[in-house]
Amino acid sequence: MKATANAPANIAFIKYWGRRDHQLFLPLTTTSSMNLDACRSTTTVDFDPAYDRDTITIVDEQGDRKEVSPEGSRKDRGLFRQLDRVRELAGTSLRAKVLSSTNIPLDAGIASSAAGLCAFTAAALAAIGLRAMVEDREALSREVRLTGSVSAARSTHDGFTKHLFGERHEDAVTRQIAPPEHWDLRDLVAVVTREQKSISSSLGHELAHTSPYLEARLAEMQSRIGLVERAILERDLCTLGPAIEFECISMHAVMMTSTPPAYYWSPGTIAVLKQVLGLRKAGLEAYFTLDAGPNVHVLCEAPQAAELECQLRSNPFVTAVLHNRTGVGVRLLDTQFF
Amino acid sequence: MKATANAPANIAFIKYWGRRDHQLFLPLTTTSSMNLDACRSTTTVDFDPAYDRDTITIVDEQGDRKEVSPEGSRKDRGLFRQLDRVRELAGTSLRAKVLSSTNIPLDAGIASSAAGLCAFTAAALAAIGLRAMVEDREALSREVRLTGSVSAARSTHDGFTKHLFGERHEDAVTRQIAPPEHWDLRDLVAVVTREQKSISSSLGHELAHTSPYLEARLAEMQSRIGLVERAILERDLCTLGPAIEFECISMHAVMMTSTPPAYYWSPGTIAVLKQVLGLRKAGLEAYFTLDAGPNVHVLCEAPQAAELECQLRSNPFVTAVLHNRTGVGVRLLDTQFF
Repeated sequence: MKATANAPANIAFIKYWGRRDHQLFLPLTTTSSMNLDACRSTTTVDFDPAYDRDTITIVDEQGDRKEVSPEGSRKDRGLFRQLDRVRELAGTSLRAKVLSSTNIPLDAGIASSAAGLCAFTAAALAAIGLRAMVEDREALSREVRLTGSVSAARSTHDGFTKHLFGERHEDAVTRQIAPPEHWDLRDLVAVVTREQKSISSSLGHELAHTSPYLEARLAEMQSRIGLVERAILERDLCTLGPAIEFECISMHAVMMTSTPPAYYWSPGTIAVLKQVLGLRKAGLEAYFTLDAGPNVHVLCEAPQAAELECQLRSNPFVTAVLHNRTGVGVRLLDTQFF
Repeated sequence: MKATANAPANIAFIKYWGRRDHQLFLPLTTTSSMNLDACRSTTTVDFDPAYDRDTITIVDEQGDRKEVSPEGSRKDRGLFRQLDRVRELAGTSLRAKVLSSTNIPLDAGIASSAAGLCAFTAAALAAIGLRAMVEDREALSREVRLTGSVSAARSTHDGFTKHLFGERHEDAVTRQIAPPEHWDLRDLVAVVTREQKSISSSLGHELAHTSPYLEARLAEMQSRIGLVERAILERDLCTLGPAIEFECISMHAVMMTSTPPAYYWSPGTIAVLKQVLGLRKAGLEAYFTLDAGPNVHVLCEAPQAAELECQLRSNPFVTAVLHNRTGVGVRLLDTQFF
C-alpha cells in the first residue's frame, strides 16, 4: 500500500496570517496564490504490516536526511497526527514509512512546508486506499488544511488558486482561479539567506491576535481579495503588482507588532525590496512579495524575466535565484522512492 | 542685531508622525523625546540694514557649505518663511544673514533638522530683539513648531521633554519631563548609511493619512504615552525599552503602508535591529528605535555603553557610532560665527 505524490510550493498574493480556529485551522480570510513549477516536494508513503511504528524521513535540498521525531517540533508532531487521521478515515491501524524530498531551502519562507504537507497528505490518502479523496481536489484541500497549513491546501489545484474563508470546515476549500496556461507569470525567488526562521509560521498564526493592527488589516484587505482575483483573470500586472506589495507589507506590519514581535526580514530583504523599486523606476515591470521569511519573491511577466533574473543575480545580497513559472497542483506519481 | 544659538537633536520615544493641522503643524498626539548632547546645530542670525535680501548658508558635518534657495525644497522655503514670521513679530523689515553649522549627517534620520530649526528660530528671535520670547521656553516651542517641526519644538527644553497635543495652537507647547541629570541614559546612533531620504519627513507627515493603519496606531499608542513618561521618571529601562521598540515599528508600519509607501530602512537597519535583539538575548540591556530614516538609535544605561558601542562598531554595516548622553536644550551663545 504505497503511493507517491508531488506538490508545488506556492506564492501567496493574498496572505494567510492568523486563524479563527486553531483545531480546524480555519483562516481569518480567503487567501490566494500561484503555484510554483520549480519549487516542489515529492513524498512516498507506504503503509505496511511490516512496520511496527511510523517513520518519517525528510531529504532537504542539500541532500541531507532528517528523521522526524514524534516528540519533535509542533510541525513534526503534526505529521504523525496526520498519519493517525488518515488511518482513522480508512479504518486501519497499519504503520507507515514516509520519505519526503524537496528542492526548496527548508524553513526560509519559500513555502517548503506547503509543498511537503500537500504531497504528504495526498500520498498518504492514496497509499491507504482513499484515492478517490485525492481525485476530489476540494475534499483533498480540506484534509491538507488539517495538517495546520492553509498555504498547503492551496497547492491542491493547478495554477492560480484560492482557499475560501468558508463559514464551516466543509466550506473552507480550495478553488481554482485560473489554470497555469492562463498567464505566463514568473516568480523569481531571490534567496538572501538560508537561515531558519526564529518564529515558525505556525506559532506566528497564533501570535497574530496579539497585534493591535490585526483588526485594521482584516478590514483594509477585504477589497484586495476581489481586486487580486480580477487582476489574475484579466492578466493585469499593473493592478496585481501594487496590491501584492501592499499585502505583504500589511502582513509583516502585523507580524512585527505582535507580542513577541516576529522580524522575518534580513538585510538582504531590504536590499532586494529597494532594488525592485529601483528597477521599476527604470522601467522594468516587477513587483515584490514576501512570505513569512526573509527571501523575496519578485513577480514579472515572461518577457521581463531574463533581464530581471540577471539583475537579481547581480545583487550582492542574493545567493541564488529560483526561477518559477506557474505550476500545476498536486499529482500522484507512478514511480516510488523505495 | 546678531545672535547665535545652539540646539540639540533629540531621539523621540513617542513618535511624531502625521498632523491634524498643516498650517499650525499641530501633531496628532503628544510626543516625547530625549535631547542628545553630541548631535547639535549652531546658528548665527544677523538682521542688518546692509543686507538687501535674506541669505541662509548651512555647513554640514563634512564641512561642505550649501546656500539655501528661497525657491528650493519645501524645507528650504520654510526657513525663509520663518524669517518673515520673526520680522512680523518684531515689526521690522530688516533682511538677515544666516549661517548654520551642524555635526550631524543631514537628512539621514538623526533629527538634524530638529536641531537646526530650533537653533535657527531661537537665534532669529534673539537677534531681532525678542530675547524674552527665547527665555520663555514654552513660547519659544510654539514658534519653533511653526517652522513645521514638532520634533524641533521638543529641543527647546533640557533633558527629557514632551510636546503636548494641545487643543489649540496656544496649548501645543513643549514641557520638560525630567532634566538631563535625572538619568544617565545613552543613545548610541549606529550610522549605517548617509544616503538622503527619498521621502522627506515633512511630506511623510502628510502621507500618514493615506495609511489604513493610522487610526489603529493612534488608538494603540495612547496608553504608551503615559507609560513612557512614567518609565522616564522612574528610570525604568525595562519598561521604556520595549515600549520604544514597539513605538518605532508602529510608526514605520504606518509609513510603509502609506500611498506612496515610505521605506526608510536599509539593509544595515535590519542588521543592527537583529544585533540589538541578539545582544539583549545575551544579557546586554539595550533597545532600538528609529526615526524617519535608516540609522538605528540604540538606548542603554551608562554601565552598558562602552560594551554596546564596541559591539555596534564591530557590525560590518555600521560606518560610525555617535555616542550621546542626555543633553540640554537650546542655548543662546555669546560667540558668533561672523
